[in-house]
Amino acid sequence: MASQTRERILDTSLAMFNAQGEPNVTTNHIADELEISPGNLYYHFRNKEDIVEQVFTRYEARMDDALLVPEGRLPNLEDVWMQLHLVFECMWDYRFLYRDLVDILSRNRKLKQHFSRILNRASSSASEVLKGLAQAEILRATQDEIRATAENVLLVTTFWLSYNTVRGARPDASQEDLTHGIYQVMLLIAPFLREAERMHLNTLAQAYRR
Amino acid sequence: MASQTRERILDTSLAMFNAQGEPNVTTNHIADELEISPGNLYYHFRNKEDIVEQVFTRYEARMDDALLVPEGRLPNLEDVWMQLHLVFECMWDYRFLYRDLVDILSRNRKLKQHFSRILNRASSSASEVLKGLAQAEILRATQDEIRATAENVLLVTTFWLSYNTVRGARPDASQEDLTHGIYQVMLLIAPFLREAERMHLNTLAQAYRR
Repeated sequence: MASQTRERILDTSLAMFNAQGEPNVTTNHIADELEISPGNLYYHFRNKEDIVEQVFTRYEARMDDALLVPEGRLPNLEDVWMQLHLVFECMWDYRFLYRDLVDILSRNRKLKQHFSRILNRASSSASEVLKGLAQAEILRATQDEIRATAENVLLVTTFWLSYNTVRGARPDASQEDLTHGIYQVMLLIAPFLREAERMHLNTLAQAYRR
Repeated sequence: MASQTRERILDTSLAMFNAQGEPNVTTNHIADELEISPGNLYYHFRNKEDIVEQVFTRYEARMDDALLVPEGRLPNLEDVWMQLHLVFECMWDYRFLYRDLVDILSRNRKLKQHFSRILNRASSSASEVLKGLAQAEILRATQDEIRATAENVLLVTTFWLSYNTVRGARPDASQEDLTHGIYQVMLLIAPFLREAERMHLNTLAQAYRR
């Protein structure tokens, strides 16, 4: 029962952070929304920072799963699409974090360290997948090109939601923005693909661009 | 004399915003640093927001210049390098803005509108240059590829300093980060270049990557 309340607090906090922005949500707002007493909330969490960190722990576990690279075989383009979908969906479900990344990380040293670990893993994962595609001869690029492209993949992905915010996206814009983001990342890889794959991608991309 | 003090206030404010982050600098700090009275400062500016907006006006004029596209002839790769240098140097000189972009714009509606105008201009400029390179047959890409690449150029450029912050760059890291950023943007264009230009770029890039 206690543990169920704890989960409800985390679910509701995440929803409120996403809808209103994390700095605008207090523990009192969260308790009100759940119709529980602040005392009950403080039984489960020391303070709001504690809630933010527990929400982040969930995010981190989910992103770790999304970043898994196929084992025992070379990756193919389907894997790239799949992985990008998992990563963008995770980013969307925790969008309060990505819309205001620099600010949130600057206020919490622990989150900054954990996010840094995630970025390092994402960087390795992107490099490994691109190298795998090159090894499978689906993609042709020099080592420098692979390294720089992996870094651009990381940057475009990480700041896609911030970019939309700055360009004036409505806060409720959703699926369309995600698919557009995935398309933008695929376009980073596309020019290095074999002709057949590049054309296939351009056809798929029709469905993705707005 | 009055106008000279005004300029000194703006110069010092910019330097302090860059060094300490704009939210951490108050009008009292600025007056202290200049060894003038707060009253003297308030003679020139209504409040800190007024200073921020005047600093932004300078930034805006400089970025407008950097975004000029060659007139009366098609652009070449030298133009792209030159423009990227001007844009990145302007971003660096006003780095307080770019390191914490989403937060600063969310706090000031006027700045948000002006920054949005700059982004729209940058977007047109990037598209125009890429189309010009295609017309000069230096670059080969479909219309979809040009549109998506222009958008990635905009995103990577705009969030380059935020990306470095999140990845844990030291606040005083400078020239190296800029040249790396310019290299990352050139790499977005490189795969679409003619073979000769692509090889030339790869050679130049040796000097740029860290």
